[in-house]
Amino acid sequence: MSSVLSDFLQSRKKTIETRLPDYIKELEAPETIKEAMLYSLKAGGKRLRPILVLALLHTYGKREELGIATACAIEMIHTYSLIHDDLPCMDDDDLRRGKPTNHKVFGEAVAVLAGDGLLTQSFSLIVNDPYCSQENKLRLVSELVNAAGAQGMVGGQIADMQGEAKALSLEELQSIHENKTGKLLQYSIISGAILADAPENDIEKLRKIGYHLGLAFQIRDDILDIEGNEQIIGKPVGSDTLNEKTTYPKILTMQGAKAKLDEHITQAKKLIDHLSVQSSILVQICELIAKRDH
Amino acid sequence: MSSVLSDFLQSRKKTIETRLPDYIKELEAPETIKEAMLYSLKAGGKRLRPILVLALLHTYGKREELGIATACAIEMIHTYSLIHDDLPCMDDDDLRRGKPTNHKVFGEAVAVLAGDGLLTQSFSLIVNDPYCSQENKLRLVSELVNAAGAQGMVGGQIADMQGEAKALSLEELQSIHENKTGKLLQYSIISGAILADAPENDIEKLRKIGYHLGLAFQIRDDILDIEGNEQIIGKPVGSDTLNEKTTYPKILTMQGAKAKLDEHITQAKKLIDHLSVQSSILVQICELIAKRDH
Repeated sequence: MSSVLSDFLQSRKKTIETRLPDYIKELEAPETIKEAMLYSLKAGGKRLRPILVLALLHTYGKREELGIATACAIEMIHTYSLIHDDLPCMDDDDLRRGKPTNHKVFGEAVAVLAGDGLLTQSFSLIVNDPYCSQENKLRLVSELVNAAGAQGMVGGQIADMQGEAKALSLEELQSIHENKTGKLLQYSIISGAILADAPENDIEKLRKIGYHLGLAFQIRDDILDIEGNEQIIGKPVGSDTLNEKTTYPKILTMQGAKAKLDEHITQAKKLIDHLSVQSSILVQICELIAKRDH
Repeated sequence: MSSVLSDFLQSRKKTIETRLPDYIKELEAPETIKEAMLYSLKAGGKRLRPILVLALLHTYGKREELGIATACAIEMIHTYSLIHDDLPCMDDDDLRRGKPTNHKVFGEAVAVLAGDGLLTQSFSLIVNDPYCSQENKLRLVSELVNAAGAQGMVGGQIADMQGEAKALSLEELQSIHENKTGKLLQYSIISGAILADAPENDIEKLRKIGYHLGLAFQIRDDILDIEGNEQIIGKPVGSDTLNEKTTYPKILTMQGAKAKLDEHITQAKKLIDHLSVQSSILVQICELIAKRDH
Protein backbone atom coordinates (compact mmCIF):
# COMPACT_ATOMS: atom_id res chain seq x y z
CA MET A 1 0.00 0.00 0.00
CA SER A 2 1.36 3.47 -0.89
CA SER A 3 1.98 5.80 2.01
CA VAL A 4 -0.41 8.32 0.45
CA LEU A 5 -3.23 5.77 0.52
CA SER A 6 -2.27 4.52 3.95
CA ASP A 7 -2.31 8.09 5.34
CA PHE A 8 -5.63 8.77 3.64
CA LEU A 9 -7.26 5.65 5.08
CA GLN A 10 -5.88 6.20 8.56
CA SER A 11 -6.87 9.85 8.82
CA ARG A 12 -10.42 9.20 7.51
CA LYS A 13 -10.85 6.18 9.79
CA LYS A 14 -9.92 8.40 12.70
CA THR A 15 -12.36 11.11 11.61
CA ILE A 16 -15.21 8.60 11.38
CA GLU A 17 -14.37 6.97 14.71
CA THR A 18 -14.25 10.39 16.37
CA ARG A 19 -17.53 11.64 14.93
CA LEU A 20 -19.64 8.47 14.97
CA PRO A 21 -20.26 8.19 18.75
CA ASP A 22 -21.52 11.78 19.03
CA TYR A 23 -24.65 10.96 17.06
CA ILE A 24 -25.59 8.41 19.74
CA LYS A 25 -24.31 10.19 22.84
CA GLU A 26 -26.54 13.20 22.13
CA LEU A 27 -29.73 11.10 22.12
CA GLU A 28 -32.23 11.40 24.96
CA ALA A 29 -32.65 7.68 25.42
CA PRO A 30 -32.16 5.03 28.12
CA GLU A 31 -28.47 4.50 28.88
CA THR A 32 -28.65 0.75 28.11
CA ILE A 33 -29.71 1.23 24.51
CA LYS A 34 -27.11 3.93 23.97
CA GLU A 35 -24.40 1.72 25.48
CA ALA A 36 -25.41 -1.22 23.31
CA MET A 37 -25.46 0.91 20.16
CA LEU A 38 -22.09 2.48 21.00
CA TYR A 39 -20.50 -0.85 21.90
CA SER A 40 -20.89 -2.20 18.38
CA LEU A 41 -20.19 1.13 16.67
CA LYS A 42 -16.90 1.31 18.55
CA ALA A 43 -15.94 -2.31 17.88
CA GLY A 44 -13.66 -1.27 15.04
CA GLY A 45 -13.39 -2.67 11.56
CA LYS A 46 -11.91 -1.21 8.39
CA ARG A 47 -14.56 1.53 8.09
CA LEU A 48 -14.32 0.97 4.33
CA ARG A 49 -17.84 2.18 3.58
CA PRO A 50 -17.64 5.59 5.29
CA ILE A 51 -14.10 6.04 3.95
CA LEU A 52 -15.47 5.54 0.43
CA VAL A 53 -17.94 8.40 0.97
CA LEU A 54 -15.08 10.68 2.01
CA ALA A 55 -12.89 9.42 -0.85
CA LEU A 56 -15.54 10.53 -3.33
CA LEU A 57 -15.72 14.02 -1.80
CA HIS A 58 -11.92 14.14 -1.99
CA THR A 59 -12.09 13.06 -5.63
CA TYR A 60 -14.39 15.94 -6.49
CA GLY A 61 -12.38 18.45 -4.46
CA LYS A 62 -15.11 18.97 -1.88
CA ARG A 63 -14.81 19.42 1.88
CA GLU A 64 -14.82 16.21 3.90
CA GLU A 65 -17.36 17.71 6.31
CA LEU A 66 -20.05 17.38 3.62
CA GLY A 67 -19.79 13.60 3.87
CA ILE A 68 -19.61 13.01 7.61
CA ALA A 69 -23.33 12.57 8.34
CA THR A 70 -23.98 10.17 5.45
CA ALA A 71 -20.72 8.28 6.08
CA CYS A 72 -21.74 7.76 9.70
CA ALA A 73 -25.28 6.78 8.68
CA ILE A 74 -23.85 4.05 6.42
CA GLU A 75 -21.60 2.77 9.20
CA MET A 76 -24.64 2.61 11.51
CA ILE A 77 -26.52 0.53 8.94
CA HIS A 78 -23.52 -1.75 8.44
CA THR A 79 -23.19 -2.13 12.22
CA TYR A 80 -26.89 -2.90 12.74
CA SER A 81 -26.66 -5.60 10.07
CA LEU A 82 -23.72 -7.21 11.87
CA ILE A 83 -25.55 -7.15 15.24
CA HIS A 84 -28.61 -8.86 13.75
CA ASP A 85 -26.49 -11.29 11.66
CA ASP A 86 -24.64 -12.42 14.80
CA LEU A 87 -27.86 -13.28 16.71
CA PRO A 88 -28.35 -16.91 17.78
CA CYS A 89 -31.25 -17.29 15.33
CA MET A 90 -29.02 -16.11 12.46
CA ASP A 91 -25.27 -16.93 12.36
CA ASP A 92 -25.03 -17.45 16.15
CA ASP A 93 -21.60 -15.86 16.48
CA ASP A 94 -20.04 -15.26 19.90
CA LEU A 95 -17.15 -13.18 18.62
CA ARG A 96 -16.88 -10.32 16.14
CA ARG A 97 -13.49 -8.74 15.50
CA GLY A 98 -12.15 -10.61 18.50
CA LYS A 99 -14.72 -9.13 20.90
CA PRO A 100 -17.90 -10.67 22.31
CA THR A 101 -20.86 -9.97 20.01
CA ASN A 102 -23.55 -7.52 21.08
CA HIS A 103 -26.02 -10.14 22.31
CA LYS A 104 -23.29 -11.87 24.32
CA VAL A 105 -22.74 -8.63 26.25
CA PHE A 106 -26.24 -7.13 26.42
CA GLY A 107 -28.52 -10.11 25.81
CA GLU A 108 -30.54 -10.94 22.73
CA ALA A 109 -33.46 -8.60 23.34
CA VAL A 110 -31.25 -5.55 23.75
CA ALA A 111 -29.18 -6.60 20.71
CA VAL A 112 -32.31 -6.76 18.52
CA LEU A 113 -33.33 -3.31 19.75
CA ALA A 114 -29.83 -1.84 19.41
CA GLY A 115 -29.90 -2.92 15.76
CA ASP A 116 -33.37 -1.45 15.30
CA GLY A 117 -32.21 1.77 16.96
CA LEU A 118 -29.14 2.12 14.73
CA LEU A 119 -31.13 1.44 11.57
CA THR A 120 -33.79 4.00 12.53
CA GLN A 121 -31.27 6.65 13.62
CA SER A 122 -29.25 6.44 10.42
CA PHE A 123 -32.05 8.17 8.49
CA SER A 124 -32.02 11.06 10.94
CA LEU A 125 -28.34 11.75 10.22
CA ILE A 126 -29.10 12.22 6.54
CA VAL A 127 -32.23 14.36 6.83
CA ASN A 128 -30.65 16.54 9.53
CA ASP A 129 -27.33 16.98 7.72
CA PRO A 130 -26.70 20.75 7.85
CA TYR A 131 -24.62 20.75 4.64
CA CYS A 132 -26.85 18.83 2.25
CA SER A 133 -29.55 20.23 -0.05
CA GLN A 134 -33.17 19.12 0.42
CA GLU A 135 -33.14 17.42 -2.95
CA ASN A 136 -29.96 15.49 -2.21
CA LYS A 137 -31.23 14.41 1.22
CA LEU A 138 -34.36 12.89 -0.30
CA ARG A 139 -32.36 11.15 -3.00
CA LEU A 140 -29.91 9.81 -0.43
CA VAL A 141 -32.70 8.39 1.75
CA SER A 142 -34.44 6.81 -1.21
CA GLU A 143 -31.24 5.19 -2.51
CA LEU A 144 -30.33 4.05 1.00
CA VAL A 145 -33.63 2.20 1.39
CA ASN A 146 -33.00 0.43 -1.91
CA ALA A 147 -29.48 -0.52 -0.84
CA ALA A 148 -30.29 -1.60 2.72
CA GLY A 149 -33.87 -2.92 2.60
CA ALA A 150 -35.66 -5.91 1.11
CA GLN A 151 -34.45 -4.95 -2.38
CA GLY A 152 -30.86 -4.86 -1.15
CA MET A 153 -29.03 -6.03 1.95
CA VAL A 154 -32.02 -7.52 3.82
CA GLY A 155 -33.12 -9.40 0.70
CA GLY A 156 -29.56 -10.60 0.12
CA GLN A 157 -29.36 -11.91 3.66
CA ILE A 158 -32.55 -13.94 3.15
CA ALA A 159 -31.29 -15.30 -0.18
CA ASP A 160 -27.97 -16.19 1.45
CA MET A 161 -29.70 -18.13 4.24
CA GLN A 162 -31.89 -19.95 1.74
CA GLY A 163 -28.85 -20.79 -0.38
CA GLU A 164 -26.90 -22.35 2.48
CA ALA A 165 -25.80 -25.93 1.89
CA LYS A 166 -27.30 -25.77 -1.60
CA ALA A 167 -25.26 -25.89 -4.79
CA LEU A 168 -25.72 -22.45 -6.31
CA SER A 169 -25.00 -21.35 -9.86
CA LEU A 170 -22.52 -18.52 -10.43
CA GLU A 171 -25.45 -16.29 -11.32
CA GLU A 172 -27.28 -17.07 -8.06
CA LEU A 173 -24.12 -16.58 -6.01
CA GLN A 174 -23.46 -13.26 -7.70
CA SER A 175 -27.01 -12.04 -7.10
CA ILE A 176 -26.74 -12.90 -3.38
CA HIS A 177 -23.50 -10.99 -2.95
CA GLU A 178 -24.64 -8.10 -5.08
CA ASN A 179 -27.49 -7.59 -2.63
CA LYS A 180 -26.04 -8.74 0.68
CA THR A 181 -22.79 -6.77 0.62
CA GLY A 182 -22.54 -5.12 -2.79
CA LYS A 183 -25.37 -2.61 -2.67
CA LEU A 184 -24.33 -0.88 0.57
CA LEU A 185 -20.76 -0.65 -0.71
CA GLN A 186 -22.07 0.71 -3.98
CA TYR A 187 -24.24 3.17 -2.06
CA SER A 188 -21.17 4.43 -0.20
CA ILE A 189 -19.65 5.42 -3.52
CA ILE A 190 -22.80 6.88 -5.07
CA SER A 191 -23.78 8.82 -1.95
CA GLY A 192 -20.34 10.45 -1.84
CA ALA A 193 -20.77 11.49 -5.46
CA ILE A 194 -24.29 12.84 -4.82
CA LEU A 195 -23.01 14.84 -1.84
CA ALA A 196 -20.22 16.21 -4.03
CA ASP A 197 -22.78 17.24 -6.67
CA ALA A 198 -20.90 15.14 -9.22
CA PRO A 199 -22.21 15.13 -12.83
CA GLU A 200 -25.01 12.59 -13.41
CA ASN A 201 -22.87 10.86 -16.03
CA ASP A 202 -20.23 10.24 -13.41
CA ILE A 203 -22.78 8.99 -10.89
CA GLU A 204 -24.00 6.38 -13.35
CA LYS A 205 -20.39 5.26 -14.00
CA LEU A 206 -19.77 5.18 -10.25
CA ARG A 207 -22.82 2.94 -9.84
CA LYS A 208 -21.12 0.43 -12.15
CA ILE A 209 -17.78 0.93 -10.39
CA GLY A 210 -19.54 0.22 -7.08
CA TYR A 211 -21.05 -2.93 -8.55
CA HIS A 212 -17.65 -4.27 -9.63
CA LEU A 213 -15.97 -3.29 -6.36
CA GLY A 214 -18.74 -4.93 -4.32
CA LEU A 215 -18.30 -8.22 -6.13
CA ALA A 216 -14.49 -7.95 -6.08
CA PHE A 217 -14.67 -7.40 -2.32
CA GLN A 218 -16.69 -10.58 -1.89
CA ILE A 219 -14.51 -12.72 -4.17
CA ARG A 220 -11.46 -11.60 -2.18
CA ASP A 221 -13.36 -12.62 0.98
CA ASP A 222 -13.92 -16.09 -0.43
CA ILE A 223 -10.24 -16.37 -1.41
CA LEU A 224 -9.10 -15.21 2.03
CA ASP A 225 -11.25 -17.88 3.64
CA ILE A 226 -9.00 -20.44 1.92
CA GLU A 227 -5.62 -18.74 1.55
CA GLY A 228 -5.77 -16.12 4.30
CA ASN A 229 -3.72 -15.89 7.49
CA GLU A 230 -5.92 -16.46 10.55
CA GLN A 231 -3.79 -14.09 12.62
CA ILE A 232 -4.27 -11.22 10.19
CA ILE A 233 -7.94 -11.84 9.32
CA GLY A 234 -8.87 -12.24 13.00
CA LYS A 235 -11.15 -15.22 12.39
CA PRO A 236 -10.64 -18.90 11.54
CA VAL A 237 -10.17 -19.70 7.85
CA GLY A 238 -11.95 -22.59 6.14
CA SER A 239 -15.39 -21.78 7.59
CA ASP A 240 -17.00 -21.65 4.14
CA THR A 241 -15.81 -25.18 3.33
CA LEU A 242 -16.93 -26.35 6.77
CA ASN A 243 -20.40 -24.84 6.26
CA GLU A 244 -20.58 -26.20 2.72
CA LYS A 245 -21.12 -22.69 1.41
CA THR A 246 -21.01 -22.04 -2.29
CA THR A 247 -18.07 -19.74 -2.99
CA TYR A 248 -16.35 -18.33 -6.04
CA PRO A 249 -13.35 -20.69 -5.76
CA LYS A 250 -15.74 -23.63 -5.38
CA ILE A 251 -17.56 -22.80 -8.61
CA LEU A 252 -14.66 -21.39 -10.62
CA THR A 253 -11.59 -23.04 -9.03
CA MET A 254 -9.11 -20.81 -7.17
CA GLN A 255 -7.46 -19.74 -10.42
CA GLY A 256 -10.83 -18.91 -11.96
CA ALA A 257 -11.89 -16.92 -8.89
CA LYS A 258 -8.69 -14.89 -9.04
CA ALA A 259 -9.25 -14.22 -12.74
CA LYS A 260 -12.82 -13.10 -11.97
CA LEU A 261 -11.53 -10.79 -9.25
CA ASP A 262 -9.02 -9.28 -11.70
CA GLU A 263 -11.75 -8.87 -14.28
CA HIS A 264 -13.95 -6.83 -11.88
CA ILE A 265 -11.01 -4.69 -10.76
CA THR A 266 -10.00 -4.04 -14.39
CA GLN A 267 -13.56 -3.04 -15.28
CA ALA A 268 -13.75 -0.72 -12.28
CA LYS A 269 -10.43 0.94 -13.14
CA LYS A 270 -11.45 1.40 -16.76
CA LEU A 271 -14.62 3.16 -15.64
CA ILE A 272 -12.67 5.33 -13.19
CA ASP A 273 -10.48 6.38 -16.14
CA HIS A 274 -13.58 7.74 -17.88
CA LEU A 275 -14.85 9.90 -15.00
CA SER A 276 -14.84 13.67 -15.50
CA VAL A 277 -12.12 13.94 -12.83
CA GLN A 278 -8.94 12.03 -12.04
CA SER A 279 -9.04 9.90 -8.92
CA SER A 280 -5.82 8.20 -7.90
CA ILE A 281 -7.39 7.48 -4.47
CA LEU A 282 -10.21 5.47 -6.05
CA VAL A 283 -7.73 3.55 -8.23
CA GLN A 284 -5.66 2.76 -5.17
CA ILE A 285 -8.74 1.62 -3.22
CA CYS A 286 -9.53 -0.74 -6.12
CA GLU A 287 -6.07 -2.24 -5.84
CA LEU A 288 -6.41 -2.50 -2.09
CA ILE A 289 -9.69 -4.40 -2.39
CA ALA A 290 -8.05 -6.81 -4.84
CA LYS A 291 -5.05 -7.49 -2.62
CA ARG A 292 -6.29 -6.96 0.93
CA ASP A 293 -5.16 -9.55 3.46
CA HIS A 294 -8.00 -8.95 5.98
CA MET B 1 -70.15 4.55 18.67
CA SER B 2 -71.98 6.91 16.29
CA SER B 3 -72.70 5.56 12.84
CA VAL B 4 -70.74 8.49 11.35
CA LEU B 5 -67.62 7.49 13.28
CA SER B 6 -68.18 3.81 12.61
CA ASP B 7 -68.49 4.48 8.85
CA PHE B 8 -65.42 6.70 8.93
CA LEU B 9 -63.30 4.09 10.70
CA GLN B 10 -64.50 1.25 8.51
CA SER B 11 -63.96 3.02 5.22
CA ARG B 12 -60.47 4.24 6.20
CA LYS B 13 -59.48 0.83 7.54
CA LYS B 14 -60.51 -0.61 4.20
CA THR B 15 -58.50 2.00 2.30
CA ILE B 16 -55.38 1.27 4.34
CA GLU B 17 -55.76 -2.49 4.03
CA THR B 18 -56.21 -2.16 0.27
CA ARG B 19 -53.21 0.10 -0.25
CA LEU B 20 -50.72 -1.28 2.26
CA PRO B 21 -49.80 -4.55 0.45
CA ASP B 22 -48.99 -2.77 -2.82
CA TYR B 23 -45.92 -1.13 -1.31
CA ILE B 24 -44.48 -4.59 -0.63
CA LYS B 25 -45.76 -6.47 -3.67
CA GLU B 26 -43.98 -4.04 -6.02
CA LEU B 27 -40.56 -4.70 -4.47
CA GLU B 28 -37.92 -6.64 -6.40
CA ALA B 29 -36.99 -8.89 -3.51
CA PRO B 30 -36.95 -12.61 -2.65
CA GLU B 31 -40.48 -14.01 -2.32
CA THR B 32 -39.88 -15.25 1.25
CA ILE B 33 -39.14 -11.82 2.66
CA LYS B 34 -42.10 -10.28 0.84
CA GLU B 35 -44.40 -13.06 2.12
CA ALA B 36 -43.17 -12.60 5.69
CA MET B 37 -43.62 -8.81 5.53
CA LEU B 38 -47.08 -9.16 3.98
CA TYR B 39 -48.18 -11.84 6.45
CA SER B 40 -47.87 -9.48 9.40
CA LEU B 41 -49.10 -6.42 7.53
CA LYS B 42 -52.25 -8.34 6.63
CA ALA B 43 -52.80 -9.76 10.12
CA GLY B 44 -55.39 -7.09 10.89
CA GLY B 45 -55.73 -4.90 13.94
CA LYS B 46 -57.62 -1.66 14.45
CA ARG B 47 -55.34 0.34 12.09
CA LEU B 48 -55.79 3.21 14.55
CA ARG B 49 -52.50 4.93 13.68
CA PRO B 50 -53.02 5.19 9.90
CA ILE B 51 -56.68 6.10 10.47
CA LEU B 52 -55.51 9.02 12.65
CA VAL B 53 -53.40 10.34 9.76
CA LEU B 54 -56.44 10.27 7.49
CA ALA B 55 -58.65 11.77 10.22
CA LEU B 56 -56.35 14.79 10.38
CA LEU B 57 -56.50 15.30 6.63
CA HIS B 58 -60.29 15.05 6.88
CA THR B 59 -60.26 17.59 9.70
CA TYR B 60 -58.40 20.11 7.54
CA GLY B 61 -60.57 19.42 4.50
CA LYS B 62 -57.75 17.84 2.50
CA ARG B 63 -57.80 14.86 0.17
CA GLU B 64 -57.27 11.48 1.83
CA GLU B 65 -54.77 10.54 -0.88
CA LEU B 66 -52.26 12.98 0.61
CA GLY B 67 -52.01 10.81 3.71
CA ILE B 68 -51.86 7.29 2.25
CA ALA B 69 -48.07 6.93 1.99
CA THR B 70 -47.32 8.22 5.49
CA ALA B 71 -50.25 6.31 7.00
CA CYS B 72 -48.93 3.09 5.45
CA ALA B 73 -45.37 3.91 6.58
CA ILE B 74 -46.60 4.24 10.17
CA GLU B 75 -48.47 0.94 9.96
CA MET B 76 -45.27 -0.71 8.66
CA ILE B 77 -43.31 0.63 11.64
CA HIS B 78 -46.04 -0.50 14.06
CA THR B 79 -46.04 -3.95 12.42
CA TYR B 80 -42.24 -4.31 12.52
CA SER B 81 -42.32 -3.47 16.24
CA LEU B 82 -44.90 -6.19 16.87
CA ILE B 83 -42.86 -8.78 14.93
CA HIS B 84 -39.71 -8.01 16.93
CA ASP B 85 -41.65 -7.76 20.25
CA ASP B 86 -43.11 -11.22 19.69
CA LEU B 87 -39.68 -12.89 19.20
CA PRO B 88 -38.66 -15.60 21.68
CA CYS B 89 -35.93 -13.33 23.08
CA MET B 90 -38.47 -10.57 23.73
CA ASP B 91 -42.09 -11.41 24.75
CA ASP B 92 -41.98 -14.90 23.22
CA ASP B 93 -45.56 -14.81 21.95
CA ASP B 94 -46.95 -17.59 19.77
CA LEU B 95 -50.15 -15.81 18.86
CA ARG B 96 -50.95 -12.28 17.75
CA ARG B 97 -54.57 -11.33 17.01
CA GLY B 98 -55.43 -15.02 17.12
CA LYS B 99 -52.91 -15.98 14.42
CA PRO B 100 -49.45 -17.56 14.76
CA THR B 101 -46.80 -14.87 15.15
CA ASN B 102 -44.37 -14.16 12.33
CA HIS B 103 -41.50 -16.25 13.72
CA LYS B 104 -43.86 -19.20 14.33
CA VAL B 105 -44.67 -19.25 10.61
CA PHE B 106 -41.38 -18.17 9.00
CA GLY B 107 -38.78 -18.90 11.69
CA GLU B 108 -36.90 -16.44 13.87
CA ALA B 109 -34.26 -15.40 11.35
CA VAL B 110 -36.81 -14.45 8.70
CA ALA B 111 -38.93 -12.67 11.33
CA VAL B 112 -35.98 -10.51 12.40
CA LEU B 113 -35.32 -9.65 8.75
CA ALA B 114 -39.00 -9.04 7.93
CA GLY B 115 -39.06 -6.49 10.75
CA ASP B 116 -35.84 -4.90 9.49
CA GLY B 117 -37.27 -4.81 5.98
CA LEU B 118 -40.53 -3.14 7.07
CA LEU B 119 -38.70 -0.55 9.15
CA THR B 120 -36.33 0.29 6.29
CA GLN B 121 -39.08 0.41 3.66
CA SER B 122 -41.26 2.76 5.66
CA PHE B 123 -38.87 5.64 5.00
CA SER B 124 -39.09 5.07 1.27
CA LEU B 125 -42.86 5.53 1.34
CA ILE B 126 -42.45 9.01 2.80
CA VAL B 127 -39.60 10.26 0.62
CA ASN B 128 -41.25 8.89 -2.54
CA ASP B 129 -44.72 10.23 -1.73
CA PRO B 130 -45.82 11.97 -4.94
CA TYR B 131 -48.10 14.43 -3.11
CA CYS B 132 -45.82 15.75 -0.38
CA SER B 133 -43.49 18.79 -0.56
CA GLN B 134 -39.72 18.27 -0.12
CA GLU B 135 -39.77 20.25 3.10
CA ASN B 136 -42.62 18.22 4.58
CA LYS B 137 -40.99 14.93 3.59
CA LEU B 138 -37.81 15.83 5.46
CA ARG B 139 -39.75 16.96 8.50
CA LEU B 140 -41.83 13.78 8.45
CA VAL B 141 -38.73 11.55 8.31
CA SER B 142 -37.01 13.48 11.09
CA GLU B 143 -40.06 13.34 13.37
CA LEU B 144 -40.58 9.67 12.55
CA VAL B 145 -37.05 8.79 13.68
CA ASN B 146 -37.69 10.60 16.97
CA ALA B 147 -40.97 8.76 17.45
CA ALA B 148 -39.78 5.29 16.45
CA GLY B 149 -36.07 5.17 17.38
CA ALA B 150 -34.03 5.13 20.58
CA GLN B 151 -35.59 8.43 21.66
CA GLY B 152 -39.08 6.99 21.21
CA MET B 153 -40.51 3.52 20.69
CA VAL B 154 -37.24 1.54 20.77
CA GLY B 155 -36.12 3.36 23.93
CA GLY B 156 -39.53 2.79 25.51
CA GLN B 157 -39.31 -0.93 24.77
CA ILE B 158 -35.93 -1.12 26.53
CA ALA B 159 -37.24 0.84 29.52
CA ASP B 160 -40.31 -1.41 29.65
CA MET B 161 -38.15 -4.57 29.71
CA GLN B 162 -35.94 -3.11 32.41
CA GLY B 163 -38.99 -2.12 34.46
CA GLU B 164 -40.51 -5.61 34.42
CA ALA B 165 -41.20 -7.10 37.85
CA LYS B 166 -39.98 -3.85 39.43
CA ALA B 167 -42.22 -1.47 41.36
CA LEU B 168 -42.30 1.65 39.18
CA SER B 169 -43.41 5.13 40.17
CA LEU B 170 -46.26 6.75 38.26
CA GLU B 171 -43.71 9.03 36.63
CA GLU B 172 -41.56 6.09 35.45
CA LEU B 173 -44.60 4.20 34.17
CA GLN B 174 -45.80 7.26 32.30
CA SER B 175 -42.40 7.82 30.69
CA ILE B 176 -42.28 4.20 29.50
CA HIS B 177 -45.71 4.42 27.88
CA GLU B 178 -45.09 7.86 26.47
CA ASN B 179 -42.17 6.39 24.53
CA LYS B 180 -43.23 2.80 23.89
CA THR B 181 -46.70 3.47 22.49
CA GLY B 182 -47.37 7.18 22.89
CA LYS B 183 -44.90 8.71 20.49
CA LEU B 184 -45.92 6.72 17.39
CA LEU B 185 -49.57 7.47 18.13
CA GLN B 186 -48.68 11.12 18.60
CA TYR B 187 -46.70 11.03 15.34
CA SER B 188 -49.78 9.69 13.52
CA ILE B 189 -51.64 12.83 14.53
CA ILE B 190 -48.83 15.30 13.88
CA SER B 191 -47.89 13.79 10.54
CA GLY B 192 -51.48 14.08 9.35
CA ALA B 193 -51.45 17.75 10.32
CA ILE B 194 -48.10 18.35 8.59
CA LEU B 195 -49.41 16.69 5.42
CA ALA B 196 -52.51 18.89 5.61
CA ASP B 197 -50.30 22.00 5.94
CA ALA B 198 -52.08 22.83 9.20
CA PRO B 199 -51.03 26.05 11.00
CA GLU B 200 -47.98 25.60 13.27
CA ASN B 201 -50.06 26.64 16.26
CA ASP B 202 -52.41 23.78 15.61
CA ILE B 203 -49.54 21.33 15.16
CA GLU B 204 -48.19 22.22 18.59
CA LYS B 205 -51.65 21.72 20.11
CA LEU B 206 -51.99 18.43 18.26
CA ARG B 207 -48.66 17.33 19.72
CA LYS B 208 -50.19 17.76 23.18
CA ILE B 209 -53.42 16.11 22.08
CA GLY B 210 -51.35 13.17 20.83
CA TYR B 211 -49.54 13.00 24.15
CA HIS B 212 -52.83 12.78 26.08
CA LEU B 213 -54.39 10.29 23.67
CA GLY B 214 -51.29 8.08 23.79
CA LEU B 215 -51.43 7.85 27.57
CA ALA B 216 -55.23 7.48 27.57
CA PHE B 217 -54.85 4.60 25.12
CA GLN B 218 -52.42 2.84 27.44
CA ILE B 219 -54.48 3.40 30.61
CA ARG B 220 -57.47 1.89 28.82
CA ASP B 221 -55.25 -1.06 27.89
CA ASP B 222 -54.36 -1.58 31.55
CA ILE B 223 -58.03 -1.36 32.55
CA LEU B 224 -59.08 -3.83 29.85
CA ASP B 225 -56.48 -6.29 31.11
CA ILE B 226 -58.51 -6.45 34.34
CA GLU B 227 -62.11 -5.68 33.35
CA GLY B 228 -62.09 -6.65 29.68
CA ASN B 229 -63.90 -9.49 27.94
CA GLU B 230 -61.44 -12.10 26.65
CA GLN B 231 -63.70 -12.91 23.71
CA ILE B 232 -63.77 -9.30 22.53
CA ILE B 233 -60.11 -8.43 23.25
CA GLY B 234 -58.88 -11.61 21.58
CA LYS B 235 -56.31 -12.37 24.26
CA PRO B 236 -56.40 -13.58 27.87
CA VAL B 237 -57.04 -10.93 30.53
CA GLY B 238 -55.01 -10.74 33.74
CA SER B 239 -51.61 -11.12 32.03
CA ASP B 240 -50.27 -7.91 33.64
CA THR B 241 -51.07 -9.20 37.15
CA LEU B 242 -49.57 -12.56 36.24
CA ASN B 243 -46.36 -10.92 35.00
CA GLU B 244 -46.27 -8.58 38.00
CA LYS B 245 -46.27 -5.61 35.65
CA THR B 246 -46.73 -2.14 37.06
CA THR B 247 -49.99 -0.75 35.67
CA TYR B 248 -52.09 2.35 36.22
CA PRO B 249 -54.73 0.51 38.28
CA LYS B 250 -51.97 -1.03 40.39
CA ILE B 251 -50.50 2.37 41.28
CA LEU B 252 -53.70 4.44 41.33
CA THR B 253 -56.42 1.84 42.11
CA MET B 254 -59.02 1.09 39.42
CA GLN B 255 -61.01 4.18 40.34
CA GLY B 256 -57.87 6.35 40.20
CA ALA B 257 -56.87 4.91 36.82
CA LYS B 258 -60.31 5.67 35.40
CA ALA B 259 -60.10 9.21 36.75
CA LYS B 260 -56.65 9.61 35.13
CA LEU B 261 -58.03 8.33 31.84
CA ASP B 262 -60.88 10.86 32.04
CA GLU B 263 -58.40 13.60 32.83
CA HIS B 264 -56.31 12.90 29.70
CA ILE B 265 -59.41 12.68 27.51
CA THR B 266 -60.76 15.95 28.94
CA GLN B 267 -57.43 17.68 28.31
CA ALA B 268 -57.33 16.35 24.77
CA LYS B 269 -60.88 17.51 24.03
CA LYS B 270 -60.19 20.95 25.48
CA LEU B 271 -57.20 21.31 23.17
CA ILE B 272 -59.24 20.10 20.17
CA ASP B 273 -61.74 22.86 20.99
CA HIS B 274 -58.98 25.42 20.53
CA LEU B 275 -57.79 24.27 17.10
CA SER B 276 -58.33 26.63 14.17
CA VAL B 277 -60.87 24.17 12.74
CA GLN B 278 -63.72 22.11 14.17
CA SER B 279 -63.13 18.37 14.33
CA SER B 280 -66.00 16.21 15.45
CA ILE B 281 -64.11 13.14 14.15
CA LEU B 282 -61.17 13.81 16.50
CA VAL B 283 -63.53 14.33 19.44
CA GLN B 284 -65.27 11.08 18.64
CA ILE B 285 -61.94 9.23 18.36
CA CYS B 286 -61.06 10.58 21.83
CA GLU B 287 -64.27 9.12 23.21
CA LEU B 288 -63.65 5.86 21.42
CA ILE B 289 -60.17 5.56 22.96
CA ALA B 290 -61.66 6.18 26.42
CA LYS B 291 -64.40 3.58 26.03
CA ARG B 292 -62.96 1.00 23.62
CA ASP B 293 -63.58 -2.62 24.56
CA HIS B 294 -60.67 -4.08 22.56
